[in-house]
Amino acid sequence: LSVGLNPPSSIAAVAGVRLASVAAGIRKPDRHDLALLVVTPGTECAAVFTRNRFRAAPVEVALAHLETAKPRALLINTGYANAGTGEAGRRDARACCEALAAELDCRPEEVLPFSTGVIGEPLPLAPIRAALPGLVGALRGEGWVEAAGGIMTTDTVPKAASRRIEIEGRTVSVSGIAKGAGMIRPDMATMLAFVATDAAVPAADLEALLHEAVGQSFNRISVDGDTSTSDACCVLATGAAGVTVAAGSRAWERLRRSLTEVCVELAQAIVRDGEGATKFITIRVEEAAGAAEARAVADAVAHSPLVKTAFYASDPNWGRILAAVGRAGIDDLEITGVRIALNDVVIVSHGGRDPSYTEDAGQRAMDADEITVRIGLGRGRESTVLWTCDLSHGYVTINAEYRT
Amino acid sequence: LSVGLNPPSSIAAVAGVRLASVAAGIRKPDRHDLALLVVTPGTECAAVFTRNRFRAAPVEVALAHLETAKPRALLINTGYANAGTGEAGRRDARACCEALAAELDCRPEEVLPFSTGVIGEPLPLAPIRAALPGLVGALRGEGWVEAAGGIMTTDTVPKAASRRIEIEGRTVSVSGIAKGAGMIRPDMATMLAFVATDAAVPAADLEALLHEAVGQSFNRISVDGDTSTSDACCVLATGAAGVTVAAGSRAWERLRRSLTEVCVELAQAIVRDGEGATKFITIRVEEAAGAAEARAVADAVAHSPLVKTAFYASDPNWGRILAAVGRAGIDDLEITGVRIALNDVVIVSHGGRDPSYTEDAGQRAMDADEITVRIGLGRGRESTVLWTCDLSHGYVTINAEYRT
Repeated sequence: LSVGLNPPSSIAAVAGVRLASVAAGIRKPDRHDLALLVVTPGTECAAVFTRNRFRAAPVEVALAHLETAKPRALLINTGYANAGTGEAGRRDARACCEALAAELDCRPEEVLPFSTGVIGEPLPLAPIRAALPGLVGALRGEGWVEAAGGIMTTDTVPKAASRRIEIEGRTVSVSGIAKGAGMIRPDMATMLAFVATDAAVPAADLEALLHEAVGQSFNRISVDGDTSTSDACCVLATGAAGVTVAAGSRAWERLRRSLTEVCVELAQAIVRDGEGATKFITIRVEEAAGAAEARAVADAVAHSPLVKTAFYASDPNWGRILAAVGRAGIDDLEITGVRIALNDVVIVSHGGRDPSYTEDAGQRAMDADEITVRIGLGRGRESTVLWTCDLSHGYVTINAEYRT
Repeated sequence: LSVGLNPPSSIAAVAGVRLASVAAGIRKPDRHDLALLVVTPGTECAAVFTRNRFRAAPVEVALAHLETAKPRALLINTGYANAGTGEAGRRDARACCEALAAELDCRPEEVLPFSTGVIGEPLPLAPIRAALPGLVGALRGEGWVEAAGGIMTTDTVPKAASRRIEIEGRTVSVSGIAKGAGMIRPDMATMLAFVATDAAVPAADLEALLHEAVGQSFNRISVDGDTSTSDACCVLATGAAGVTVAAGSRAWERLRRSLTEVCVELAQAIVRDGEGATKFITIRVEEAAGAAEARAVADAVAHSPLVKTAFYASDPNWGRILAAVGRAGIDDLEITGVRIALNDVVIVSHGGRDPSYTEDAGQRAMDADEITVRIGLGRGRESTVLWTCDLSHGYVTINAEYRT
């Protein structure tokens, strides 16, 4: 039920990174639900987390650990989010780190825990502890796709992306995995993403890279407007390729572009695999007076259940798009300046139906699996882009039956 | 498919008001799609309209007419919203007013036009013109329920409400009708409401009454978070009962309360008949530091597709409510102060699962058709209430098939 999304095939190994996943039986039997990513000592890490005030216990623990040590291992479980679980939840998250640290012979603070799944239920420790030796034994540099499978919840396709570039005669890899399908909106959502490169990147530069890449990718997607208590995106730079890339260096721009491309591919994969998604929608807002209003219009259209159900029905009901633009909060919006196109079909000009528009042309645009909605506001030069999907029976089914 | 909503039975006639509806064949045959409300000369009218920047043509025309004359007649069609139709749409709306004015022997400016239905298509004038003589001929004081049926679109039940009070030995009636089922959110939605009393109320006082009643009713409901281009609420005071009620007079408080009760009943009826609704949800936010944050939390919960699908599934997935509270934008929210109850079942206290909570108790609360979510923020003394419904397969079906 995903849109134009194939399982990843050739994901480049990243020197200094090993991964694995196992079926630990955390909530359901026989599905990979525990994944591990281990990096060489000295690896730099930059991370961003959910802005939801109800941060899951592992997020609290990960933040604390990041303040005291560079991470050696990322441990990710599905099934339970260990959120809304209070002090007991933090204790459980720390217990997972301690158990893994004992296996890896590192300090517990060098482990970052991540959990995704049902909120409010305690995390079962026994199956996780029991699975750790096998998980550590299965670690391998080629484990990216397997790990991508191990962090899936309602995802239907594992999500991984990869780029290789040449720097100073050496091959540098950038590879990443992500999970997420529902509870997705801009500014971090129910989404976990782990990206690594074997270039060495100074800590401050890695931080800058992360924020730019996230701004261009994960903060531009929306499935249902909900945010989660568990979102996280980590970027790791192992340095194992023997090349240092710092801001301002000749290779910086290429690394930056590769990392952003990997993040955009992963972010789009989350939308393509959006819960119940049958369409991949690109919303492009142009000619805005400022970045904030461009984003407000894109958000209003992307979050409108009426727009999203019209896409599901392949119904060129452009009046719903127009109504969403009209309620986006731009008080001095001049209707007569607004232009809307579906792919290359102009449907609205001067705030009304374009004279050239025909239902047939609109229907052809709507019948496609991938549709670009281009909204011109006629107010200025700012633009933005957002990726979203339709709202289908599949979405309701998945979210009404998630716990059963 | 409505929740606890019965067709209206005894709606009090309001002296000085006559109503009717007919099947004009505007978009579909054999359904009442044109309604008329006519008032005696001298009737005061106060009205509020959509804040959507794309205001439908009839809204523009009604606003212009209200500036030049007191209305004698309200003409409401369904089928087409006459929105996004530009200058031609305004011409069509004025043409409807002119045709009706000729029938009623009044000025076109004394007619207010209202349209609801598909956006962006032209309004067919011929069937409307042809139906007007029959519509005028059918006018009667007892026509409230019939008119309520004539303004329905995706509504499944006509919506009307009524109160009678004694003032100075005379009976004063307050009766109203409304339509709306989808595209509903606070601050006016796809909703039309017409309320009348036969008390005489000075213009400024009627304006105040309207704003208070709307603030307590139609601005507190949400079905899907979308607003429409056509929303309107009119309150009429005919004075035909021979009693004047002005602000500060002894009877003012009783008229105010009756009018607010009628509006609340109509507003709740819209939610009870929300597209695909299977549950009627009252969201009560308490102990907020200010009115704005109370409303922000109520909105975040009411608009969350994940919360709404959990209600549809009767799933006490309180983690989703907690996550919605957490993303409502209160930056200094202390999780440990938050308390959430479903009806009288406390599910969250101190930001985590309440020790007394059991799945059974949560399930019992969720199984009901009508559920109150009570959210305590532990920050102050402000509170608010919002009414909403669940998100079901029915909603998707209705909105994916609306134009077919």
